[in-house]
Amino acid sequence: MENISLNKHISGQFNAELGDIRNRVLAMGGLVERQLEQSLDALATLDAELASKIIEGDHKVNGMEVSIDEECTRIIAKRQPAASDLRLIIAISKTIADLERIGDATVRIAKAALEKRTNNQQPLLVSIESMGRHATHTLHQTLDALARMDADAAFELHKSDAKLDAEYEGIIRQLMTYMMEDPRSIPGVLDVLWAARAVERVGDRCKNICEYIIYYVKGKDVRHTSYEDMEKDLQE
Amino acid sequence: MENISLNKHISGQFNAELGDIRNRVLAMGGLVERQLEQSLDALATLDAELASKIIEGDHKVNGMEVSIDEECTRIIAKRQPAASDLRLIIAISKTIADLERIGDATVRIAKAALEKRTNNQQPLLVSIESMGRHATHTLHQTLDALARMDADAAFELHKSDAKLDAEYEGIIRQLMTYMMEDPRSIPGVLDVLWAARAVERVGDRCKNICEYIIYYVKGKDVRHTSYEDMEKDLQE
Repeated sequence: MENISLNKHISGQFNAELGDIRNRVLAMGGLVERQLEQSLDALATLDAELASKIIEGDHKVNGMEVSIDEECTRIIAKRQPAASDLRLIIAISKTIADLERIGDATVRIAKAALEKRTNNQQPLLVSIESMGRHATHTLHQTLDALARMDADAAFELHKSDAKLDAEYEGIIRQLMTYMMEDPRSIPGVLDVLWAARAVERVGDRCKNICEYIIYYVKGKDVRHTSYEDMEKDLQE
Repeated sequence: MENISLNKHISGQFNAELGDIRNRVLAMGGLVERQLEQSLDALATLDAELASKIIEGDHKVNGMEVSIDEECTRIIAKRQPAASDLRLIIAISKTIADLERIGDATVRIAKAALEKRTNNQQPLLVSIESMGRHATHTLHQTLDALARMDADAAFELHKSDAKLDAEYEGIIRQLMTYMMEDPRSIPGVLDVLWAARAVERVGDRCKNICEYIIYYVKGKDVRHTSYEDMEKDLQE
């Protein structure tokens, strides 16, 4: 495994380009994290103005995805990177796709906040909020691991997604009971259900990003592998 | 816009590698298409054996994703492709991610077929089957457009996803009415709802693949752009 150092390049310009693209993906992550936090605020308080702001703001996330991706392609064509440099660019190019989809999830959460029929679902919204804070924390830690390119942290975060999944399953059961007890609530509860689903998907996206971090640091593609095998890869 | 020809390479070996990777992504697409067809069969007939076969078969799709992705990285590092060759590899690397997720959708459909409580939802399953056949047809045509790298066909397919979305909305309304009329049916109907959602997502994945085809052929990233702008890009 070659030693990873971003400072090893003869070309200072190439170095600067890699640094710049890392900063840009972290800035995109920061924006997505804020959108997620605010979409959960909007849902908890049914704040239509904030929800609309989030929906409008999604184009910024989309724009960042396209421009970072373009820069990745430009660097590959111009600099012909190999080894860890190439892995960095590939990891970044995959990460921004997942960040963009977390952005889509925040739009879905914000849209649930705009639905008038969710008004009566206050007790359900509380469960989602708690799950949502958990997902926001996971995203924050994932972005931290990405900033530090910390494969061990990424591995721990990857495993911790099971907790968010369990929380989600609990919410779905709760929503089901609610609907069965009061069938008139079904349309409103379904809106809440889509929001819960969107939050759960944020965890999946974070897991993907953790896989890219491990790929960059360890040079191993750990997608679709068991935790046992991942652990072995990390020890190598 | 440079002229795209897969036969322009001095290196016959590089040529062969690009041809090979194109064939492999089409083979992966073919496998995913069969999985989708069979998962819909399994749901329509509640065939548990077939459903289990699909769930087990998903690791093949995952394995293809990982190995094609590895080959893409290897080619970039070794051949240092530029222009349309680089775009081809990037388009392929993104396409396989979406194909893998269509594979995940087939697993979700197959799992709904395994749920005993869907047994009583026969009329609902008929609606999903019809929507599912539509999605399978879209996937088939998308893979055709990919094989021929036909940007115009990709554009038409992209627009046609709105029909699948409308079909999905209709099914959700139908499921809602069903649950309100018979609250005991709610758990079973939710299983059907997740399957419907998975089918709808297949259409979204096909749309993504169409965007990569246009990116390869036209050199334009048309994600998040309006149909008006896409049309302009296609005419250039």
